[in-house]
Amino acid sequence: MSDELQHSDADELQAHLTEVQDLLARHRLVENLVHRQEMSRQADSQKALVEDLVHKQHLVQLHARLDRMHPADIAYVLEALPPDERLLVWDLVRADRDGEILLEVSDAVRESLIESMAPAELRAAAESLDTDELADLAPDLPREVIEDVFRSLSAEEREQLRAAMSYPEDTVGAIMDFEMVTVREDVSLEAVLRYLRRFDELPDHTDQLFVVDRDERLKGVLPLNVLLVNDPETEVGALMQTDCVDLRPDDFAEEAAKAFERYDLVSAAVVDDDQKLVGRVTVNAVVDFIREEAESEQLAQAGLREEEDIFAPVIDSVKNRWAWLAVNLVTAFVASRVIGAFEDSIEKLVALAALMPIVAGIGGNSGNQTIIMIVRAIAMGQVQPDALSRLLRKELGVALINGLVWGGLLGLISWWLYDSASLGLVMTSAMTLNLLLAALAGVAIPILRYRLGNDPAIGGSVMITALTDSGGFFIFLGLATLFLL
Amino acid sequence: MSDELQHSDADELQAHLTEVQDLLARHRLVENLVHRQEMSRQADSQKALVEDLVHKQHLVQLHARLDRMHPADIAYVLEALPPDERLLVWDLVRADRDGEILLEVSDAVRESLIESMAPAELRAAAESLDTDELADLAPDLPREVIEDVFRSLSAEEREQLRAAMSYPEDTVGAIMDFEMVTVREDVSLEAVLRYLRRFDELPDHTDQLFVVDRDERLKGVLPLNVLLVNDPETEVGALMQTDCVDLRPDDFAEEAAKAFERYDLVSAAVVDDDQKLVGRVTVNAVVDFIREEAESEQLAQAGLREEEDIFAPVIDSVKNRWAWLAVNLVTAFVASRVIGAFEDSIEKLVALAALMPIVAGIGGNSGNQTIIMIVRAIAMGQVQPDALSRLLRKELGVALINGLVWGGLLGLISWWLYDSASLGLVMTSAMTLNLLLAALAGVAIPILRYRLGNDPAIGGSVMITALTDSGGFFIFLGLATLFLL
Repeated sequence: MSDELQHSDADELQAHLTEVQDLLARHRLVENLVHRQEMSRQADSQKALVEDLVHKQHLVQLHARLDRMHPADIAYVLEALPPDERLLVWDLVRADRDGEILLEVSDAVRESLIESMAPAELRAAAESLDTDELADLAPDLPREVIEDVFRSLSAEEREQLRAAMSYPEDTVGAIMDFEMVTVREDVSLEAVLRYLRRFDELPDHTDQLFVVDRDERLKGVLPLNVLLVNDPETEVGALMQTDCVDLRPDDFAEEAAKAFERYDLVSAAVVDDDQKLVGRVTVNAVVDFIREEAESEQLAQAGLREEEDIFAPVIDSVKNRWAWLAVNLVTAFVASRVIGAFEDSIEKLVALAALMPIVAGIGGNSGNQTIIMIVRAIAMGQVQPDALSRLLRKELGVALINGLVWGGLLGLISWWLYDSASLGLVMTSAMTLNLLLAALAGVAIPILRYRLGNDPAIGGSVMITALTDSGGFFIFLGLATLFLL
Repeated sequence: MSDELQHSDADELQAHLTEVQDLLARHRLVENLVHRQEMSRQADSQKALVEDLVHKQHLVQLHARLDRMHPADIAYVLEALPPDERLLVWDLVRADRDGEILLEVSDAVRESLIESMAPAELRAAAESLDTDELADLAPDLPREVIEDVFRSLSAEEREQLRAAMSYPEDTVGAIMDFEMVTVREDVSLEAVLRYLRRFDELPDHTDQLFVVDRDERLKGVLPLNVLLVNDPETEVGALMQTDCVDLRPDDFAEEAAKAFERYDLVSAAVVDDDQKLVGRVTVNAVVDFIREEAESEQLAQAGLREEEDIFAPVIDSVKNRWAWLAVNLVTAFVASRVIGAFEDSIEKLVALAALMPIVAGIGGNSGNQTIIMIVRAIAMGQVQPDALSRLLRKELGVALINGLVWGGLLGLISWWLYDSASLGLVMTSAMTLNLLLAALAGVAIPILRYRLGNDPAIGGSVMITALTDSGGFFIFLGLATLFLL
């Protein structure tokens, strides 16, 4: 079916959206007219009938338009429409396509669509999916729908679904599918070719056939490219590749993604501890995983729990964002109390109040640069135990140079602004010390978190900013109190 | 060749690295011994000979180890080693593999390796690559090497190289390759199968054959899956898919990546304005592109120009980071002058100095949350012209709620700390106003940048932090001056 559907580039996709919006706008216009006429009770019945037809016609056009669109494109249109129009379009989508579209939309939009559907519709949508797809959708479905769907599955499918749902979200088990084509090693390529012709179509992303023995144990793989260029008389066993990548269901999906990148894979076998073939991972699942990882990392960096439907109610957004603001409030409050402890000094030399945010701010920026470098190096496996002291020396070196150069510059400016050489000196020393503190923490925080088994990427930015803020205020105001007052 | 090489999962990769390091360590140990003996001039010649052999033996082992490793894995090992050991290992790599490994290592490490190579070695490495790969490497090679390599190419290859190098880094032209297998539409599948058997191997990621006419114009594609399941008597033209994704060389690579994600592609044709087939994009190039984009975005967010070799000299790191620090210095200085303008007020009521960073800090965090949401919505094409006012209303609503809740809380704390209800009220109002400013700017900055044709993701965080810092200080100190003094 998918080959009848249109594929669109970015401009065409934009055009689809505009067209849908246009049809919706016309639909709404007519609806308003009809509504207004009904209100004024002057409805000339014939005119209303015509308008009713026009009204329906737009929806019919829209219906036809949607039928020709790829599910991923419909998902795009749904995400870009505000809630009322989104649900109108959703109602026009052919029911047998609901399932694949629900898989494509973002989590937030999916929730809003599922809320609008009756249990029977949801059941029909779910039943149109493969078991691995169903496993992705299942957590969002009402319990009774899942149970109904589960009863409708074959024993093998139930087993697959149970397996797919039992793996945590970030593992290979959660991104694998079950559509493997398997062959035996003692048959000829000719026989394989004949076997393949019995399929109506091969599963998507079939770039290799999996060679298994009678116990379903993986013996090797036969790439289609090898199948196609070799003499049909040859046996599979003579051509199959035995040193292939095989993943385990409980491997981290991130590791699978790295293997796909390193070895430029299209698909890879997933085997259990007995080397039995249980599924396969395909590059499209890996691409989706990589994108989602990058996105959730980006969101996490600003303390956003999840992606927001841009049309979500205000209260949902407040909930999504509040935890981070609360944490920042606490760290800002601590920094504020550090300043509070030096109120006497500030009262005597009010210039300190104006200069202190510079020391804290630059420290935070520099620390964030360090932490991002280290987190990336850890993620790429480049941080070996003996590299720690080397990294620390390097970062301290960078901090020292930056502190002397930028701190020196700001020291001169402070001297000039407030006509006090000693204030300038305090400024330079405080900047340098705070940058050194930032470098130390920028190396130590992610490495400690990593050693303790935590994800070094999470929360590092908040911690270092808290440290360089409070630390910066303390160092600057402390030095000033010691040497200037 | 690649099928003889080992594929490793994460643990095995780590084991490779440890093994290499171990061999290097033993090598160094012996080297030290020999060196020490030479220094002490007591070298017993026989003993030295034995050690010399042991010494060589480690290098031979290492050599053999490297020969069996996949180029991507060697790249990983090279990146994880400090410069001296990196060059030692690099010398042990078989010369005919230099090219593919140079393609795999990060930019910074690539530079360090190329610097260590003689022009003749570089020429040999470059000549082992396909033209599209050469185009990736060329910018890093010395001019005379490129010229030599260019002369060694065939006329067609020169044309391809020139084409590939002429496209900007973020376009389809820069990520495409030229290894397409083409067929005519009037031949039978049987003939296609016979034609394919004449190949030694098909290009990587051949999931479809491109159907062209005698002028090389793309008529459609024949997926291998279709080729394999259909009757060999059928003609290509009857089975080929005509509504396929075709990219243009000057399309943005990001658009191609989105098409690959939407339609789960493995390869896609690249055609010129006459619909002539000029190349193809494969999913591995897309995966690399997506990773690199995500990484450079992450680096850009902390103002890092490029990835750093973690073992790079301090001075390189300083250069990579200085621009961002300079910008932040300017914005921090501006904020400092805003405070400077209110020094009289602070002198009279020193509590202001302690409270003002809270107002600025929370504003910055909230603004960054907004900007990330909007940038993501723009990137996904979800921000339509009429959505602007809706988005703005929503973000202002979120800001108002957060301002009243968190600002109210901080107002109460300030009241309690400084025993002044009016100070608490000023705190609450300033927080609320600064959060509203942050929301306004968080929506306006990325949308304006987008309308002006700039990348909305770049620099937004700096701008909004600058605004909420200076704005927060101004609002808080201004309100305090008006109402408290």
